[in-house]
Amino acid sequence: MSSAPLGLAIVGFGGMGHEHQRKLEGMKELVVKGTFDVKADRQSLALSLGLKAYPTFQAVLADPGVAVVLIATPNDSHKHLAVAALTAGKHVICEKPVALNTAELDEIVAASKKADRLFMVHQNRRWDEDYLTVKKILADGTLGKFYHLESRVLGSRGIPGDWRKVERFGGGMMLDWGVHLLDRLVFLIPGRITQIFCKLNYPTGQEVDEGFHLFLTFEGGQTALVEVGTCHYQPLPLWLVLGTRGTALIKDWSLEGGIVAVGGREGDAKPIVAGAGLTKTMAPRTEAGEVRSPLPVVKSDVRDFYRNFVRAAQGLEAPLVSNDEVRRIMRLMETAFESHRNGQALPFE
Amino acid sequence: MSSAPLGLAIVGFGGMGHEHQRKLEGMKELVVKGTFDVKADRQSLALSLGLKAYPTFQAVLADPGVAVVLIATPNDSHKHLAVAALTAGKHVICEKPVALNTAELDEIVAASKKADRLFMVHQNRRWDEDYLTVKKILADGTLGKFYHLESRVLGSRGIPGDWRKVERFGGGMMLDWGVHLLDRLVFLIPGRITQIFCKLNYPTGQEVDEGFHLFLTFEGGQTALVEVGTCHYQPLPLWLVLGTRGTALIKDWSLEGGIVAVGGREGDAKPIVAGAGLTKTMAPRTEAGEVRSPLPVVKSDVRDFYRNFVRAAQGLEAPLVSNDEVRRIMRLMETAFESHRNGQALPFE
Repeated sequence: MSSAPLGLAIVGFGGMGHEHQRKLEGMKELVVKGTFDVKADRQSLALSLGLKAYPTFQAVLADPGVAVVLIATPNDSHKHLAVAALTAGKHVICEKPVALNTAELDEIVAASKKADRLFMVHQNRRWDEDYLTVKKILADGTLGKFYHLESRVLGSRGIPGDWRKVERFGGGMMLDWGVHLLDRLVFLIPGRITQIFCKLNYPTGQEVDEGFHLFLTFEGGQTALVEVGTCHYQPLPLWLVLGTRGTALIKDWSLEGGIVAVGGREGDAKPIVAGAGLTKTMAPRTEAGEVRSPLPVVKSDVRDFYRNFVRAAQGLEAPLVSNDEVRRIMRLMETAFESHRNGQALPFE
Repeated sequence: MSSAPLGLAIVGFGGMGHEHQRKLEGMKELVVKGTFDVKADRQSLALSLGLKAYPTFQAVLADPGVAVVLIATPNDSHKHLAVAALTAGKHVICEKPVALNTAELDEIVAASKKADRLFMVHQNRRWDEDYLTVKKILADGTLGKFYHLESRVLGSRGIPGDWRKVERFGGGMMLDWGVHLLDRLVFLIPGRITQIFCKLNYPTGQEVDEGFHLFLTFEGGQTALVEVGTCHYQPLPLWLVLGTRGTALIKDWSLEGGIVAVGGREGDAKPIVAGAGLTKTMAPRTEAGEVRSPLPVVKSDVRDFYRNFVRAAQGLEAPLVSNDEVRRIMRLMETAFESHRNGQALPFE
């Protein structure tokens, strides 16, 4: 094993491309050689950062100093660029969503196998600390029997004004955020997904989905609601995890939240006034009847993604993001689109 | 029109029956003559309140001083008691859910028509101030174009331990709380309901549903999510109302909450750190970019239900709760049960 860093070129030097460059700074496993972007101002930015600005994508592929091509272009171009890079003998890191559909992904994976080069999708949000904290809560079993989970990302700024607004470029919130939330979700609930019901929303009349509600049922009977919204001025919590003996809530990215679980000394409920009626069923617990505890926050370093990529390219580790996993989520999103289009709940696995 | 109060007997003097008695105290339109309950301790309670404790249901019907029978018994007995009371020439107020299914309701309505006596269901939660406030917000149009609404009631005490736990008595949360939330909902969103998807939940393994998620689509394209839960230790807000230019939120029965709407001077979003990545799309608005306003709280008096009942019985007003409205909600719940059972999204109207 060589300890020299692998040379990497970033193709598509927009917001995400630049973010990769910042994250890779100072890493000993990978070094950014240069970038290629169709926009002159992004090429200038690369030059100002001391990087090479390749004049064409072909020039990237022709550089023997480039072992890894990182693709951060609009979604409709991933397949073409990935297949070309793999065929030219490069390993490839690709932004999510991997492609526009599973057929495109299958073409990429075939090219990866044929060229014997690694293709790995940047599912960086598996390193989100909110998600890893939920994973720990479920592993700890502190909520009793887990039965339902809600994962949300809600904003009020609409969808971005660039290619993400355009259907043929692979725009829309399902492919943008849904792909992350679903990719994380399936590591939290084991087993087959038996049923999918999805409702996309288009509040401001865009041609791509501006958000959605997606309801999933798992073979163990657990359910999950995944929601993304871009026209939502009072967000609900990022996470709700429901067990028979407690609920975990993560409010926002600062990991505000906590666990509320059954306490030992709760008496019989007294009816409370609730609107025009009384309710015993919905009376809140007393303080004596519940135990509040902080979130067991898990720390992470997203640069482990790149480290694993390099070791996987060298055959020393299995890739942490497998193409089978990525394909399952792509199929899930395809089924979600079909559920919305046909107004049906659909069987999945 | 006579100004003498109508005599009323309460059949089923449990929690709800007693609550009616308290609400009716001091009203000039109705006077509680007595009660009938199969449990001795509830009969004793009636006596201690200075009420007559009828020895049998037949004795209630035989009392010419009783013009109105109020039915607050377990749900499976509503039909039998209502038909008998109407046939005996009494007007009837009936607790919700009106019956176990639409076939039972149709029998009751036929008896009501035949006897020319009023039958009206106690959908008291149409007088809930949280609901009336949402109704006003939608009428005011302050949220821009309305596109989605969420109505929830969540608790952590499980379902009550009495007959409400038993299927043949009409137990379960859909019939208990669902009937209220759906009854209110359809006054908020006009037009046909085109599609229903429902997932009941049974976290502690009861024989009746302990809660549910119900997703509705309306002919105008608006959607609604209705949720009831009894194993939920950190409740979400009672109401979320989403429009293109703002969101209204009502947190709880104390009407905590408010409206957040688009402001005039919001700049372009700056990316924020969100877990292992950045996001511009989900960056919160700045204070300059939003306007916060209080809820336009609407006050109400649930005793208007009884006042309307008396005037409707006298032919002076239309009943505020019509049997057609009640039948629509019963059909909606039947379709929701079928959606869960078959794992399908179902067309409705």
